Amino acid sequence: MKKVKVAIVGASGYAGEELVRLLLAHPQADLTAVTSRQYAGQSLAQIFPKFAHCPKARSLRFTEPNVELFAEEANVVFLALPHGVAAEYAVSLVNLGSTVIDLSADFRLKSAAVYEEFYAHEHPAPELLAKSVYGLPERYRKEIKHAKLVACPGCYPTSILVPTLPLLKSKLIRPQSIIADSLSGVTGAGRKVEVDYLFAECNESVRPYGLPKHRHLSELEQELSLVAGEKVTMQFTPHLIPVNRGILTTLYLEPLGTPQQIGDSLQSAYADEPFVRLLEGKALPDTKNVVGTNFIDIAWRHDSRTNRLIVMSAEDNIVKGTSGQAIQCFNIMNDFPETTGLI
Amino acid sequence: MKKVKVAIVGASGYAGEELVRLLLAHPQADLTAVTSRQYAGQSLAQIFPKFAHCPKARSLRFTEPNVELFAEEANVVFLALPHGVAAEYAVSLVNLGSTVIDLSADFRLKSAAVYEEFYAHEHPAPELLAKSVYGLPERYRKEIKHAKLVACPGCYPTSILVPTLPLLKSKLIRPQSIIADSLSGVTGAGRKVEVDYLFAECNESVRPYGLPKHRHLSELEQELSLVAGEKVTMQFTPHLIPVNRGILTTLYLEPLGTPQQIGDSLQSAYADEPFVRLLEGKALPDTKNVVGTNFIDIAWRHDSRTNRLIVMSAEDNIVKGTSGQAIQCFNIMNDFPETTGLI
Amino acid sequence: MKKVKVAIVGASGYAGEELVRLLLAHPQADLTAVTSRQYAGQSLAQIFPKFAHCPKARSLRFTEPNVELFAEEANVVFLALPHGVAAEYAVSLVNLGSTVIDLSADFRLKSAAVYEEFYAHEHPAPELLAKSVYGLPERYRKEIKHAKLVACPGCYPTSILVPTLPLLKSKLIRPQSIIADSLSGVTGAGRKVEVDYLFAECNESVRPYGLPKHRHLSELEQELSLVAGEKVTMQFTPHLIPVNRGILTTLYLEPLGTPQQIGDSLQSAYADEPFVRLLEGKALPDTKNVVGTNFIDIAWRHDSRTNRLIVMSAEDNIVKGTSGQAIQCFNIMNDFPETTGLI
Amino acid sequence: MKKVKVAIVGASGYAGEELVRLLLAHPQADLTAVTSRQYAGQSLAQIFPKFAHCPKARSLRFTEPNVELFAEEANVVFLALPHGVAAEYAVSLVNLGSTVIDLSADFRLKSAAVYEEFYAHEHPAPELLAKSVYGLPERYRKEIKHAKLVACPGCYPTSILVPTLPLLKSKLIRPQSIIADSLSGVTGAGRKVEVDYLFAECNESVRPYGLPKHRHLSELEQELSLVAGEKVTMQFTPHLIPVNRGILTTLYLEPLGTPQQIGDSLQSAYADEPFVRLLEGKALPDTKNVVGTNFIDIAWRHDSRTNRLIVMSAEDNIVKGTSGQAIQCFNIMNDFPETTGLI
Repeated sequence: MKKVKVAIVGASGYAGEELVRLLLAHPQADLTAVTSRQYAGQSLAQIFPKFAHCPKARSLRFTEPNVELFAEEANVVFLALPHGVAAEYAVSLVNLGSTVIDLSADFRLKSAAVYEEFYAHEHPAPELLAKSVYGLPERYRKEIKHAKLVACPGCYPTSILVPTLPLLKSKLIRPQSIIADSLSGVTGAGRKVEVDYLFAECNESVRPYGLPKHRHLSELEQELSLVAGEKVTMQFTPHLIPVNRGILTTLYLEPLGTPQQIGDSLQSAYADEPFVRLLEGKALPDTKNVVGTNFIDIAWRHDSRTNRLIVMSAEDNIVKGTSGQAIQCFNIMNDFPETTGLI
Repeated sequence: MKKVKVAIVGASGYAGEELVRLLLAHPQADLTAVTSRQYAGQSLAQIFPKFAHCPKARSLRFTEPNVELFAEEANVVFLALPHGVAAEYAVSLVNLGSTVIDLSADFRLKSAAVYEEFYAHEHPAPELLAKSVYGLPERYRKEIKHAKLVACPGCYPTSILVPTLPLLKSKLIRPQSIIADSLSGVTGAGRKVEVDYLFAECNESVRPYGLPKHRHLSELEQELSLVAGEKVTMQFTPHLIPVNRGILTTLYLEPLGTPQQIGDSLQSAYADEPFVRLLEGKALPDTKNVVGTNFIDIAWRHDSRTNRLIVMSAEDNIVKGTSGQAIQCFNIMNDFPETTGLI
Repeated sequence: MKKVKVAIVGASGYAGEELVRLLLAHPQADLTAVTSRQYAGQSLAQIFPKFAHCPKARSLRFTEPNVELFAEEANVVFLALPHGVAAEYAVSLVNLGSTVIDLSADFRLKSAAVYEEFYAHEHPAPELLAKSVYGLPERYRKEIKHAKLVACPGCYPTSILVPTLPLLKSKLIRPQSIIADSLSGVTGAGRKVEVDYLFAECNESVRPYGLPKHRHLSELEQELSLVAGEKVTMQFTPHLIPVNRGILTTLYLEPLGTPQQIGDSLQSAYADEPFVRLLEGKALPDTKNVVGTNFIDIAWRHDSRTNRLIVMSAEDNIVKGTSGQAIQCFNIMNDFPETTGLI
Repeated sequence: MKKVKVAIVGASGYAGEELVRLLLAHPQADLTAVTSRQYAGQSLAQIFPKFAHCPKARSLRFTEPNVELFAEEANVVFLALPHGVAAEYAVSLVNLGSTVIDLSADFRLKSAAVYEEFYAHEHPAPELLAKSVYGLPERYRKEIKHAKLVACPGCYPTSILVPTLPLLKSKLIRPQSIIADSLSGVTGAGRKVEVDYLFAECNESVRPYGLPKHRHLSELEQELSLVAGEKVTMQFTPHLIPVNRGILTTLYLEPLGTPQQIGDSLQSAYADEPFVRLLEGKALPDTKNVVGTNFIDIAWRHDSRTNRLIVMSAEDNIVKGTSGQAIQCFNIMNDFPETTGLI
């Protein structure tokens, strides 16, 4: 079978690096271009020595981005760029007929007004919002299949939406009751060169941040509202913890159904999903079981003392939370088995 | 001034080691005995090389516990023992007239039935429960002053009760609404030699555990109920994170008053407390700011979108959460300035 | 092609777990049995939840070891057992005609006397020492191909021998000058439940141990002497550092040739080796580039001020240092491409 | 007794922050000024929340540096600035009659030519080199006592010189044989905002750097040569390990005397030193025993197989390695007991 030619715009951050890792190993993908203004002229192997054994990594050099070239030579272009910047490339590429998988926040929202509220600048390409598909396969597999522009979900939203959407759809939790307390590894901040992310500032430290109105609430509440059929407002507190990778989310919910119904709802939604693992027995999620993989592990407990439902999930923030999910979408869009290059 | 003679029963765990550190440096304490069956005969300096410069640490040797001797030669005996075991020593020591500061859970509860429900064995000395004082100075300073048996609070309860008690007392939060999501460093498990606490099992891992009915709920709900004047049931989820020390607690609460009233309540309760720091401006708690100290840092945010109150605290689990708090009680009991040996 | 049936005796430690990971993913291996006295009756997925998505991991259960059964049903048996114990199984299996790949130290030495000197007990099966092959493919590929009993090298020796053997063979370093300073992640100690390996004892700590006569010196000096053609005695100091995986070795050597000759010797030895990466330019080894892989990264510098040669290597202690190397041997023994299941 | 007024120029880096910590707690020091261009106008407590309980930290604000003011109002000025920059301030301050304790490399060398060779720019104030004293109390206590300009040693040199100087002085080691392999925590790089020091680049990583001609060799070889009475050239390889603080150095030496003589030499040099701890019995240095303190722990082993001497030391790189040593010098210069504010 002919391989699909792919390019990555913005391949020097953590999400871009992870895309490189996954695409170099993907049996159906042919990585033809990687961009980085900073590293232009250097090979993948020079910047990321861990790929040095791979001939492609030794030969392929970072370039400046070239939209026309990519539109012509690549079948699919991945954008691993900051929000705002991604949209500019997306517009040009979509206009030139390219298929785009965007890892930024630029096309996750349906409303340009909400985008402006949460991202503090006007949306650069509101006309594309209606065309884009939210790249959460467990929810939008069919739409992803035919999409020309996929907006991959944020890392936190993935960890929150996967466990809650089926329960909300089955009307087994009170929509306004959702509280999500999330813990993220430091790669979640990107390869940002700021004091806050220095080793000695993060190590032996744990801290909340960005509350109470973190940007990810915009896509979270959009997706929750769509499923609930009413406007949902939720609570979300992210924390930074000293691990490289991993998100652990603990959800506090008010159940509207029995434990049996809750278990059945999750089973029914996810028993056949290739990347959702419902834990059994006494097992609870632990990020170390999912790091480096595209799995999301989920467990839940009903507390009969308080009548609250506690749902916990664990994922790798830059695999299932970002780049792995992008590959999962890529597989769906190309009719490859969904686990290709991911298991 | 004559120093107070002190002994530590069970000085080889993390809490005991921290008591050793604090008491060796305490200007009014004279550490006269430390016990450990495992290390009997060896000096403090041999087992804890970090104290090796201290002459007392080179001369003082671990012994088998000897209740009669301690009752005679020590003015105050600290118990850093597992629950169940601590009670046996406490009974003998109290009967012999000793003053006891117990770091275990054995005398924190007023009800032997609740103890049995949560600790799964009969209470070994129910007759002492009425005599013991819960060693949280911010709440029970007066009672601690005259106590002969102080039961130091658990590490999680300290991080939860200090921020919530004033709000509950002022009727500014709905008592049944309390959700506490806590993150603890690995020393919180004690120097327990179990697979779960090996370096490679904890490092690059974060996981919830012990939910939904963790033992600490028994003392939490007792103290919350006493202040609320009604039976309080709360939600509590502890998580293990890869740091040595520190607890970060995020509380989700339903406010019954205005942000102004909430701020005033905390200010009024804690402006003069030596070890409670209310953070100002944009600052949020970070365990790295309290590790190694007896401080608890607190910040709060009102979320106008959800009308929830988020209160966050950070403490060192084995200082303010355990051994530092024990020294704070010790200072109160002996009429020393409360910060002696702690700042 | 028919798959090779394999069994793992002692699959619950870190080396065993890594063998499980590699063999579950190996396209030519069929994992038919895993043993663990402790976990007998439980499935791989229950004990190692990270494999839970794999049907084989859900169905295959730990058993008590059964030598006769394995000899009959498995083509190759991997032993991931403590030294001393491994030999007993090896004897029975070899006698029953099995092919054995042993990860312990039991068959690495040619001399039972040296074994006794370093391991402090009589060798349990000295008659097998002559039959075993030291499983370092870069040195003994041909012998491994036809071996019935392969003794995989220790993790430290791999990191030291790979960089030094070609130099010693080319007589480019003085044999008695070798000093190896090694830093190992904590999995190197195995899943040993001892105080020394608790999270809070290793985190924020770095310490030397086991010097000056670490057990690995026995196989190191044996292999160095064989290549040098004279009895080599070397210096070796291991250190424990707070990472899960990875060994970084820094070698201090006295060169007998020019920098050009040294570079040529390494290039000539390793340019075509699939798992040895000679770093170019300013690059220096970093364990994070090899963790999770079977690669060993090597760089060297000649110090013209001191006329010393500094050679540095990085590997994953439980992949190239243990289980990955075992799979590399397995591939060689079965005429599979050497990188099968490893890249 | 009247307190000594002190100022810190460059108080926002890790060394500066540690000076702040030590000076706020020092019973004989009165911290009157702290400078930072970046944080000018903000209080110590705002930038370093861990000091927020201290009234001085709440009131004292960072200012732009003002040499004239400091010369007038401070008795001693600490410089925690990059090399090159420090010299400019030192010149002005010394000319104005101030006493200066410089933590940079600017006045550690006696030779402006060597400085230029290692620091790649002309020395900014060669005329002061002869006046400065190398601030290693164990070697230059008498000279420090009367110095107006003290140049505190680098963190690595402290860990290497303390264990080797007595042996070299007693002619018990071959001067040209010294090999130092050092492992440093990430604060050693300063609060430098570079990709290399981001959490996710350092965590789960260990790597050598800066070899074979690290800048610290200049002061190391100067001090070794002075004691040896001959020009000494040594080997030094630093490594970065994922801990916040701590240096572990392993020295490989050729002994010229007996083990007894070596032990006697170290005992004789250090038995009465307040901050040097010679470990006994089987104990080996571990950074966790010295972190946060001004101690340096030393152990040694003679390897009879190789006739090499292995000496190991552990210190906190920003206490004994930098700021604590500066305070030790400060105490000596002011006739305070040397441990004041340090134990």
